[in-house]
Amino acid sequence: MQELFLDSITQTPIDSRVLEAMYPYLTGCHGNPLSRHGLGGKSQKAVEKARQQVAILIGSFPDEVIFTSTGTESNNMALIGMAHSLREKGNHLILSGLEHESVLFTARALEKEGYEISILPVDSQGLTSLESLEEAIRKQTILIAITTANGEVGTLQPLKEIGNFCQNHQIAFFSDGVAAVGQIPMDVRELNLDALSLAGNQFYGPPGIAAMYLRRGTYLAPLMYGGKHEEHHRPGTHNLPGIVGLGMAAQLALQEMPSRMTHLVNLRDYTKANLASSIPNLIWTGHSQKRLPHHLSFCVEGIQGEALLLLLELEAGVAASSGSICGDETSQSSRILLNMGISEAAAGGAIRFTFLKDTDTENLDVLFKKMPELVARLRNKFHSAINRGLGTR
Amino acid sequence: MQELFLDSITQTPIDSRVLEAMYPYLTGCHGNPLSRHGLGGKSQKAVEKARQQVAILIGSFPDEVIFTSTGTESNNMALIGMAHSLREKGNHLILSGLEHESVLFTARALEKEGYEISILPVDSQGLTSLESLEEAIRKQTILIAITTANGEVGTLQPLKEIGNFCQNHQIAFFSDGVAAVGQIPMDVRELNLDALSLAGNQFYGPPGIAAMYLRRGTYLAPLMYGGKHEEHHRPGTHNLPGIVGLGMAAQLALQEMPSRMTHLVNLRDYTKANLASSIPNLIWTGHSQKRLPHHLSFCVEGIQGEALLLLLELEAGVAASSGSICGDETSQSSRILLNMGISEAAAGGAIRFTFLKDTDTENLDVLFKKMPELVARLRNKFHSAINRGLGTR
Repeated sequence: MQELFLDSITQTPIDSRVLEAMYPYLTGCHGNPLSRHGLGGKSQKAVEKARQQVAILIGSFPDEVIFTSTGTESNNMALIGMAHSLREKGNHLILSGLEHESVLFTARALEKEGYEISILPVDSQGLTSLESLEEAIRKQTILIAITTANGEVGTLQPLKEIGNFCQNHQIAFFSDGVAAVGQIPMDVRELNLDALSLAGNQFYGPPGIAAMYLRRGTYLAPLMYGGKHEEHHRPGTHNLPGIVGLGMAAQLALQEMPSRMTHLVNLRDYTKANLASSIPNLIWTGHSQKRLPHHLSFCVEGIQGEALLLLLELEAGVAASSGSICGDETSQSSRILLNMGISEAAAGGAIRFTFLKDTDTENLDVLFKKMPELVARLRNKFHSAINRGLGTR
Repeated sequence: MQELFLDSITQTPIDSRVLEAMYPYLTGCHGNPLSRHGLGGKSQKAVEKARQQVAILIGSFPDEVIFTSTGTESNNMALIGMAHSLREKGNHLILSGLEHESVLFTARALEKEGYEISILPVDSQGLTSLESLEEAIRKQTILIAITTANGEVGTLQPLKEIGNFCQNHQIAFFSDGVAAVGQIPMDVRELNLDALSLAGNQFYGPPGIAAMYLRRGTYLAPLMYGGKHEEHHRPGTHNLPGIVGLGMAAQLALQEMPSRMTHLVNLRDYTKANLASSIPNLIWTGHSQKRLPHHLSFCVEGIQGEALLLLLELEAGVAASSGSICGDETSQSSRILLNMGISEAAAGGAIRFTFLKDTDTENLDVLFKKMPELVARLRNKFHSAINRGLGTR
C-alpha cells in the first residue's frame, strides 16, 4: 500500500537539494570550524554562509543567528537565558495559552526559581487577544512569549500587534517559531522580536540542527558552558553538515515560499471542502484563514481520534497524528484544545493533517475515498457501545 | 599540495560505512520516532538499535544511554544534572586539573550557585594522583569528575582506581570520555562510573550527535525542558540520521579497536622516534605509555607553537593544532600544561599531532622531511630576535 504522509509538522523529509549541499561535508576530511588551519577556515566559511542564509530568511543580521541542535534547545535557551539576564528588572513572564511543551515546561521550571508566570486566555479560534495581554502586564513583567503558530491547531498569532505592544511597554518579546519559520514570511524587525526559535526539520532541512535569533545587543545568560563557539552563546562542536543543510533549506524556503504557500493553501482548502461535504459533524479547529498553510485540524464528533488514525493507517496507508507528540500520552491533544473552549468529548476526536510541499491532490484520493467510511464505522461502533451501556466517555 | 590531517582530535571524518548506514535516513520520508504511526515506529526502532550499539561499546545497558547533540552538552548535563540532584547530600565537587572547558567552566558556574569546587593537582606526566583525591574529599563531596583522557596531552587517567575509591566512599563518579571513547576499550561497570560522556565526531561518526551514559537508577535533574524524548532526560526531536550514524560508528569502533589501536600506537611511536632523532630539544608532554593511541604531544623549545603550525601548513600541507581549540585564544594551550608544571616558555611551543585510523606511515614522509628544517628556521629567527633585543617572550 502506498503511504500518504500527512504528518509533516512532526518531521519533514530532507529536500534532495539540501542533501546535495550537505553531501561534501558528509564525505572527505573537514576541519573543526574553530581550528586555525586552512581546513578549519573552510569549515568556518561554510558555517558563516549558512548563518547568512538563515538570517536572510528571517530578516535578521547574520550575527544575530545562533546555531543550536533542536527547536526545544532554542526555546530553552531563549526563555531561561532571557529570564536570567533580565532578573534584576523583574520576575514576571507572560505566555500565550498555546505554547509548546518546550516553552511551557521551561516556564514552569523558572517558576520554581521564583519567577511568576501568567498564561493568557485563548479564543475559540486559537487567537491570543491583545486585551488580555494589556490586563496581564505588571511592573515586573520582563518577557512576553507568544508562539508564532501553535502546532496543534495551526492558528497564526497576531505577532505584529504584540510586537508593537512589547515595544511600547519596553518588554522583551520572544516567539517560538519552530512550527512556522520556513513556512510563512517572517521578519524579526517588522515583528519587533528580541528572540525567535526555528528548526531545520520543519522545512526540509535535516533534524539535529536548529537556530535561535537573538537581537543585537541582547544579553543572554548561557544554558551551557564550554568553548567559545557561537560567540560564547552555545558551546559545543559545530554540526557542520547539519548547519550547511539548514542554510540551504532556509534559502530554498525563501525562494519557493510564494509557490509553496499557494500550493499548500489550495491543498488544505481542497481537503477541507472534500471532508466537509462527505463527513457530517466535523468541528474545524483553529482559525479558518490565519493559519499555517500546510495545516488542517479538526475534531470528529463521536469518535476517538486515535482509533481513526489507526484505521487510516491500516486501511488507507495514511500517516497522521492528533496533536503534540511531545506531550504526555494520557492527555495528548487536550491542553490546547481545552484552552480554546472545545469540550473534552470533542477534543478526544482530534485529528491533524499537515501536508508536504510535494503532496499532490491525487495523493489525497485514497484519503477521500476511505475516510468517510472509517468515520461512519467508528461512529456506529461507538453508538452501539452506548446503546449497550458501555459508553463511558 | 597533498594535505596531511594530523588534527583528528578536533574532528574525525565520517567513515564511509557510517555514511552508508545513515544514508537511508537522509533520504525518503521518515516519521518522528515519537509518532505513533508505522513510520514513527520504524524510526524509533532505528534509534533503539543505535542505542544498543553505543551501549555495547561502553559496556552499559541500552537504557543507560541518552542521546545528546555534543560532548559539551553531555558534560553539562552530567555535571549540572548530578550536582543539582545530589544537592541535599552536599555541595562539594572534585575535578581533575585536566578537565575540558565544558567541564571546568560548568563547575565554575555551579560555584556561583553555592557549590564548592576542588581541583586536583596533576603530575608532570599528566596523571591525577589518588593521594590528592584522598586529601580532597570532604563529608560534603557529592561528585568526582575525572576526564578519561585530556585532549591536549593525551594522558589516560587511572579511572579504575578512582572508580574503586568512589565506590568505597559512596561518591558519584563522572568521566568526560569525549576524547577517549571509541579509541580505547571502556567498560562503565568495570570503572564503576555513574556517568560518562562521548561524542560521535571523535570516532568517525557524524558531528552534531553525542551521548551520555547514566547508571540505572541515577536521578538526573534536567538541563532542558520539553517533550518526553529520551525518557524525559533530554527533550527535543531526535537527530535520526545522526543517531544511526553514531550507532554504526560505535559498532565499527568496537569491532576494529584492536587493529586500530595497534596501527595508531605504531604510527605514534614511529613519529616520536623520527622527530626525536631529527629535532633537538623536544619536550614530550603527557605520559609516554598511558596515553591515547592516536595522540602525540610535545613542546618545541625556543619557538612559538602557532608559528610552527603555520609554517607546517604553508610549506608542508600539514594541518595540526597546539591544544584545546575551545579555550580562549590568548591562553590557549597553557592551562593544562602549566598545571603539569611545564614552564610558560616551553608551553608556548606546544604542538599536538593526532592521527586518523587511515593515516599511513608514508603519509608522514612530508612531515619528517620538512619539520626539522622549519623548527631550525624558527629557532634561528627567535635567537637573532633575542640578540637584537626583541625577544619579549
